[in-house]
Amino acid sequence: MTMAKSSKSKENPQVKLKELGQELALQIQKGKNPEVEFGLRSLSNVVYDEKARMLNLGSKTQTRKFFDPRHARVFLQTMEMAKIAKTLLDVNKHASLRDAFYMAKRTIPQSTINIVDEQDESDSAIEDVELITGFSRERLNINANKMGSVAGEVTIEDAGDTINWARLGSGGWSIPSNVESIEFNSVKAKYIIYMEKQAVWERLHEDKFWKKQNCIIVTSQGQTTRGIRRLLGRMSEEFKLPIYVLADNDPWGYYIYSVLKFGSISLAHMTSSLAVPQAKFLGVTTKDIEEYGLKKHLITFKDVDNTRLKQIMDYDWFKNNKPWQKEFTAMKRNGAKVEIQSLSSRGITFISDTYLPEKIKRQDFLD
Amino acid sequence: MTMAKSSKSKENPQVKLKELGQELALQIQKGKNPEVEFGLRSLSNVVYDEKARMLNLGSKTQTRKFFDPRHARVFLQTMEMAKIAKTLLDVNKHASLRDAFYMAKRTIPQSTINIVDEQDESDSAIEDVELITGFSRERLNINANKMGSVAGEVTIEDAGDTINWARLGSGGWSIPSNVESIEFNSVKAKYIIYMEKQAVWERLHEDKFWKKQNCIIVTSQGQTTRGIRRLLGRMSEEFKLPIYVLADNDPWGYYIYSVLKFGSISLAHMTSSLAVPQAKFLGVTTKDIEEYGLKKHLITFKDVDNTRLKQIMDYDWFKNNKPWQKEFTAMKRNGAKVEIQSLSSRGITFISDTYLPEKIKRQDFLD
Repeated sequence: MTMAKSSKSKENPQVKLKELGQELALQIQKGKNPEVEFGLRSLSNVVYDEKARMLNLGSKTQTRKFFDPRHARVFLQTMEMAKIAKTLLDVNKHASLRDAFYMAKRTIPQSTINIVDEQDESDSAIEDVELITGFSRERLNINANKMGSVAGEVTIEDAGDTINWARLGSGGWSIPSNVESIEFNSVKAKYIIYMEKQAVWERLHEDKFWKKQNCIIVTSQGQTTRGIRRLLGRMSEEFKLPIYVLADNDPWGYYIYSVLKFGSISLAHMTSSLAVPQAKFLGVTTKDIEEYGLKKHLITFKDVDNTRLKQIMDYDWFKNNKPWQKEFTAMKRNGAKVEIQSLSSRGITFISDTYLPEKIKRQDFLD
Repeated sequence: MTMAKSSKSKENPQVKLKELGQELALQIQKGKNPEVEFGLRSLSNVVYDEKARMLNLGSKTQTRKFFDPRHARVFLQTMEMAKIAKTLLDVNKHASLRDAFYMAKRTIPQSTINIVDEQDESDSAIEDVELITGFSRERLNINANKMGSVAGEVTIEDAGDTINWARLGSGGWSIPSNVESIEFNSVKAKYIIYMEKQAVWERLHEDKFWKKQNCIIVTSQGQTTRGIRRLLGRMSEEFKLPIYVLADNDPWGYYIYSVLKFGSISLAHMTSSLAVPQAKFLGVTTKDIEEYGLKKHLITFKDVDNTRLKQIMDYDWFKNNKPWQKEFTAMKRNGAKVEIQSLSSRGITFISDTYLPEKIKRQDFLD
């Protein structure tokens, strides 16, 4: 079966999950082999949409049947996760992926077999439920990791509280794993800077950069969590705010940008809600190294850095992009990386007073 | 020289750093070899104080001289970091360890030699400055990592803002790397639960656990940052709040407790400001596995877990502690660990409704 989409179920994951159950019950009543059809999640079905500049799933589908020795276990796991999501939505509670795993790790009655044994299995089943229902796991009340901080002239409503991101001292607001139910009351900012390092965020925050420049500053630590991707995506879409990415001048920093902007292979089925196609790379670029006197702070690549750079250069979404290819080639020639924080060698507030204002004024981005 | 402590310099790191410089200038004027004497930071000088139940530095000292080929480089690095700290304090700005490294990584005039080449060197120099001045690096405006969230009936003043930890939606307050200048306006809570996992914090927060139980909930992710240790330490000391640690039932979870309560070898010179001797271990304990039906979720130890457990069992601060030795022995017998989140197998709010209230009611802690 392919799930028919009623207008109500498009908006409401509970309705959608109920419809899924009803469809399956109907198949069983008719004496059919219960089955469900949905998009194929495999590398062979991940396509880069040149026009939208996004990674998406292609049109290949798969059919999973209950009475099929290859499918039975996974079919059951998928239905178990659908049931867990339905329960969470019914009681209005959220669970982490790990929680959901433990909820599913139970013995099938009258057997010694567990529904899932490892979290890989429940994670994968949740991704299937995302595809089948068209709702992200956040909408199914299953949360990803919590990480990161935000500050700026923004007031929101969340979980019954009114929160002003401009009045939270040196700490800022701690970004939850799930930002779906946040309501934005007022947003006064011209753009958002997203950075991979908490320490850089603290630098900009102490310098009141967001106040002086009328912007919002957001950080995670390392790879961008789904919560932060959704937060940036929502603010980009709902308030047309430009998103500027501030990361190290190395393949790992560039990959953070790549995932944020274009999506990732493993989550290609969710790109439309998780990618932020408006994001631009602010720095640190290879050109900046010369321009801002950072040559002294080049750190020679290890083999793993060279390998990673080559992989990224060859991505479909970069390989026909001339400015990016020029950038990668320059980095390859350097054979070395530079960290954001090397800007501190020019003075503790150099990044806030000079580097960022200059780059933003001349709109010096890679796109 | 041993630094004489004027009453003013005891309170003010700027005064202290200035005195250090004046002392050295005086030595130079007298034609002496500039030197500084301070506590020896090495394993041989780390002692466990049975009475205070804390790891501390012993009484051994070292003297570092400028004109000594073994000391010259490190002497210079230490003075450079003292200078950077003084500058930061003068301009009222904070830097991360990485920033401080880049500020120190400069060429000595008329040479091709850098003051520091690797962050290890600047980090170590900062620890020396901590010892020489008696001020933690946070008081010297050099920050550690930012991490973690907090919620509860507490109002603070920080960086000019009044912040109510009870009114911050699903995210909570993002804990800064440096909590020295926070002022507590009002603290309405009976105890603090500190947990190693953000996902568990989100569970308790969604369940309004802190409100129902009149407590404060704090999380980092993995090892406790210095900022969080200081936050817990300050609240424990200033408001006599008990601190209960909620971690996985494994050697790594127990190590988190150990560092928080007793201090760590590498930071033994800072134990008095970084350790939280009042902390107690709430769970998950080996006894809980039976009591709360978690046996199904035992995860067999790898070699590395067994090795780590043995190391922890042999720590001075655990080896004569009968309840803890009993606990370690039971864990060793299990040869397996259990995660906090396995409690979700009993129901999504089981941890908030049953496990924690029961354990706290019967004061079922390891100390």
